[in-house]
Amino acid sequence: MPEPLTLTRADDPRLHDYVSLTDVELRRRREPAEGLFIAEGEKVVRRALQAGYRMRSMLLTPKWADAMADVITAATAPVYVVSPELAEQVTGYHVHRGALASMERRPLPAPARLLDGARRVAVMEAVNDHTNIGAIFRSAAALGMDAVLLSPSCADPLYRRSVKVSMGAVFSVPYARLDAWPQGLDTVRAAGFEVLALTPDGGAEPLGEVASVRAGARVALLLGAEGDGLTQRAQRAADRRVRIPMAAGVDSLNVAAAAAVAFYAVASGSPG
Amino acid sequence: MPEPLTLTRADDPRLHDYVSLTDVELRRRREPAEGLFIAEGEKVVRRALQAGYRMRSMLLTPKWADAMADVITAATAPVYVVSPELAEQVTGYHVHRGALASMERRPLPAPARLLDGARRVAVMEAVNDHTNIGAIFRSAAALGMDAVLLSPSCADPLYRRSVKVSMGAVFSVPYARLDAWPQGLDTVRAAGFEVLALTPDGGAEPLGEVASVRAGARVALLLGAEGDGLTQRAQRAADRRVRIPMAAGVDSLNVAAAAAVAFYAVASGSPG
Repeated sequence: MPEPLTLTRADDPRLHDYVSLTDVELRRRREPAEGLFIAEGEKVVRRALQAGYRMRSMLLTPKWADAMADVITAATAPVYVVSPELAEQVTGYHVHRGALASMERRPLPAPARLLDGARRVAVMEAVNDHTNIGAIFRSAAALGMDAVLLSPSCADPLYRRSVKVSMGAVFSVPYARLDAWPQGLDTVRAAGFEVLALTPDGGAEPLGEVASVRAGARVALLLGAEGDGLTQRAQRAADRRVRIPMAAGVDSLNVAAAAAVAFYAVASGSPG
Repeated sequence: MPEPLTLTRADDPRLHDYVSLTDVELRRRREPAEGLFIAEGEKVVRRALQAGYRMRSMLLTPKWADAMADVITAATAPVYVVSPELAEQVTGYHVHRGALASMERRPLPAPARLLDGARRVAVMEAVNDHTNIGAIFRSAAALGMDAVLLSPSCADPLYRRSVKVSMGAVFSVPYARLDAWPQGLDTVRAAGFEVLALTPDGGAEPLGEVASVRAGARVALLLGAEGDGLTQRAQRAADRRVRIPMAAGVDSLNVAAAAAVAFYAVASGSPG
């Protein structure tokens, strides 16, 4: 067990991982490049550890040292204690959850490995909002999706906001990135999945009536970004276009709500 | 058509409706007390007008005057043009959507009137997050819920953030408040609805297997707040406890996702 170290200077190089957490542009570049991500709050830090991520360091305000005593005892990485003021000065915001950990990223699995043994997968195209990514992972975990695949332009599931909104589900739902888009969907199809593109278009098949969904066969649900929805290229690369039946004259569902409904629909359709 | 008036002073009494929009506590008190709500952004302002709400005044930055020319022409209320700097000084934030309108509230209908003719209603208990309220209304509109009933402690659907997240669905889905809680559920039952309390509890019936849902009978879906969920009192006041089947060991769905799934389930179960 490392002895917690009290740090007092904002320019201490040991605090480098935690600098300017509110600068989204900076952190989006830095975190993948440096191979780290930030877990925030007691629950999320514990879940990252349980999922087997290696800790680089932990940063606590004094009143959180007690609540995290067992985590500190088990830690093999340095633990830094700082005042709430210093935490704010370094990170750029008031850290009211009082516990941050810098965790090491792991290489993502190859999509084909992830698809092996999976039955229901979500494939996201260009979902670049961290809140939506997090919300979709949370619903995917709750509703039993086996894996998530991301197009190259999707946001990072390990970005702090995504992790938090997902309640740690980004650690439990396996995910991978498809390098070529939409050609990468061929890998999905080759693994025996029917690729279903979700669209609000009234001409698409109602999701609950699709034969593969009703039969509980292997299906990959293709979801597009808020606003634009799926590109035409992605829709053409799918096997079918499917829809959630909606009231006339109403804007489509938010992508996170649409994802939850679609995950439920493919879960309910399947035989068990 | 009123001539748009250019205002230049932050303390101009004509700007009173728009003062300190970011002060949630202040606005929560003031807006219902003064009988107004704020519509933000071109689309939302237009939807509020289409829904028949009366405008008290409109506040625009100069570059939005063109886009809103038809609204200005049709307006019977004063239209104020202010610089982006003055808009920020008055409201407390950078108004990047450039158009705000102060609208007049209308008396809410009696619950019994709303229930008459409805078939699927959502009843919310203590959902006091404006984002969740807005998201739930958006899904209710898209998935064809006929009405929403609110317990006394629910957040205001006409608060700026709720309106925005709902994409204006708070104007199109009829809603009312139940004054007595949970006794008000008797009104719902008396109107011929089966009251279904949504809970993550594994002992509850899967929603898709409930007879009234499958038969497309009149159902009222009772939803609790994020975190605590439905109170025991509310659950006891319901006819049945129902659940969305979830993966083992996972936190429940976010309330907005759960609402979307439940709305879909009661819509799909019904015969038409």
